[in-house]
Amino acid sequence: MYAVIMAGGGGTRLWPLSRAARPKPFLPLLGETTLLQATVARLAPLIGPEDVHIVTDGRYLPLVREQLPAVPAANLLAEPMGRNTAAAVAYAAAAIDRPDDEVMVVLPADHRIADEAGFRAALAAAAERAANGDLVTLGITPSGPETGYGYVLATGDAVAVRGMPAWRVERFVEKPTVERARELLAGGRASWNAGIFVWRRDALIAGLRRHAPEILEPLLAAPSPEALAALYPGLRATSIDYALLEPASLEGRVAVVPVEVGWSDLGSWAALLEAGVAEGDGTVVSRAEDGAEVLTVGGRDLLVHAAGGRLVAVVGLEGAIVVDTPDALLVVGREAAQDVKRIVDALAARGDRDRL
Amino acid sequence: MYAVIMAGGGGTRLWPLSRAARPKPFLPLLGETTLLQATVARLAPLIGPEDVHIVTDGRYLPLVREQLPAVPAANLLAEPMGRNTAAAVAYAAAAIDRPDDEVMVVLPADHRIADEAGFRAALAAAAERAANGDLVTLGITPSGPETGYGYVLATGDAVAVRGMPAWRVERFVEKPTVERARELLAGGRASWNAGIFVWRRDALIAGLRRHAPEILEPLLAAPSPEALAALYPGLRATSIDYALLEPASLEGRVAVVPVEVGWSDLGSWAALLEAGVAEGDGTVVSRAEDGAEVLTVGGRDLLVHAAGGRLVAVVGLEGAIVVDTPDALLVVGREAAQDVKRIVDALAARGDRDRL
Repeated sequence: MYAVIMAGGGGTRLWPLSRAARPKPFLPLLGETTLLQATVARLAPLIGPEDVHIVTDGRYLPLVREQLPAVPAANLLAEPMGRNTAAAVAYAAAAIDRPDDEVMVVLPADHRIADEAGFRAALAAAAERAANGDLVTLGITPSGPETGYGYVLATGDAVAVRGMPAWRVERFVEKPTVERARELLAGGRASWNAGIFVWRRDALIAGLRRHAPEILEPLLAAPSPEALAALYPGLRATSIDYALLEPASLEGRVAVVPVEVGWSDLGSWAALLEAGVAEGDGTVVSRAEDGAEVLTVGGRDLLVHAAGGRLVAVVGLEGAIVVDTPDALLVVGREAAQDVKRIVDALAARGDRDRL
Repeated sequence: MYAVIMAGGGGTRLWPLSRAARPKPFLPLLGETTLLQATVARLAPLIGPEDVHIVTDGRYLPLVREQLPAVPAANLLAEPMGRNTAAAVAYAAAAIDRPDDEVMVVLPADHRIADEAGFRAALAAAAERAANGDLVTLGITPSGPETGYGYVLATGDAVAVRGMPAWRVERFVEKPTVERARELLAGGRASWNAGIFVWRRDALIAGLRRHAPEILEPLLAAPSPEALAALYPGLRATSIDYALLEPASLEGRVAVVPVEVGWSDLGSWAALLEAGVAEGDGTVVSRAEDGAEVLTVGGRDLLVHAAGGRLVAVVGLEGAIVVDTPDALLVVGREAAQDVKRIVDALAARGDRDRL
């Protein structure tokens, strides 16, 4: 069993901490370690670092090496550029030299999972199911009719895995309207797609060959970095969900293991506030890096992340996030956390590369 | 007619912009000029800079000289230390070489006055009254039962000044409870004491000789800086209101000219937000100094003052103030603006002189 961690970058909604030069997976957003380091540490009792492979944009290789000294250099796969997860997974399938029948766990580098033991137990159960050739996804038990996630809709057919509930998947539903999300929840068979997949390498390759051959085949035939650099820009940039899981589910080849493990995609500062409150003992969450300092007086529903080397004083503020860096400061109301993208868009529009 | 501007410092509730090394009067908190510069400019059509005298703490002399090049150097009075306004006014009375019967206007360096022409008209009217020997104060028409100000309670006796209403003062009431403030307002004869006084020099000296001789006499006898430095620490630190106006009012020697001139003491960041909204065309007020920049998306009841040379992005925030400086950042809910003092106290307690 081995792991392939997708550490491609992203996280513009976590600006100004997440930048093109050091995006979300490489930041210590929760606790002392970076999200990538936490992802590897979380797997360790089940899959050691020597069995962890990282797919990343070539420009982040130095960051990955620095942050994961225990992962062998040969396990680092550098993409010439980001082309979404279908290309990244196909690249891993093509380039990692492991037995065809070994089980591969694919997972993002930048999520939070509070119940780590529960998570590993679910991976082990999913691996048991995957051993028979199924494509298995972990399904996050929804906490509400969120419209920002894809949904996995299970059939009523249970599939046996080590005493855990698991189901054949009927189909995937892309980000729904809130009405549709409510219907899905009412049906009782929907979970969120977190992009965590478990499958045998040969099942993955067979699935990609069937549903996304134009992505897989050139990668199978491209061993050299030069060849990779030449073909990558031409690859269709699409998600593995869309390229493989959706069509395969319609053929009855996908199973889901529902999990309730304190998951968050940490997709916005509001999600980080929520995660910080869940892990702390109050509703005011303070983090300070590198000589910075946080002083708070009063306040509620508050996240203060000080990474600007300065004193950040927050007095009587409610429902907000303060993020300080050396060259840019963000203060955002928690309800407006998605609108941080509008600041990033404004910086991009004026070509402010230093601050992106 | 000449002016004595009290520019002693203060403004700790405007931390982190107001610091011991550069306090409130010397900051451009509204518009392009500093509050001190605005105070002098506001007087100019009535009292030119050559007739303006500044009383300041000796350590701020370089700032005063830099900010007020049109005020003659001989008009700058350096106190060895701050001993409140009674000492400052007595020092001005003793040290400024002007005719005994000339009218002196005493006023703070760090207030906002929106209606400048109305303010000057009120000063002229007060000066007319002061010419007969009265001690005259401008009374701010209250906008509500504030507990942070002293109140001037007028008798029903009108005193004639150039067509403006003016009254004999019954007495001064120190910062009242909210119930007492409501009673005072209901009586219809109360106004706020803004620390703006108009009087002849001889009337001032006579009043001080009568009610605060222990402050006045040593100053009358102390021409040299060395003598001043020796005696100042021993002076009673009390306000001119308490030392002179209160007892003199009980003797019927004080008159009040009520004014409605868009006054604010800019006593907290909430007051600056209010002043900024009143002067702007929306409820989001942005100020950027020295290469700093402010970007806002949405938001309401918001003041952003960027003086840290960096980008300050504020998204969807309501009812708050953001103040950025190179070494400290403050974010405060508008209702908690008074609690900024608690941050300053915490810095003082740990001896953080750089940030005070």
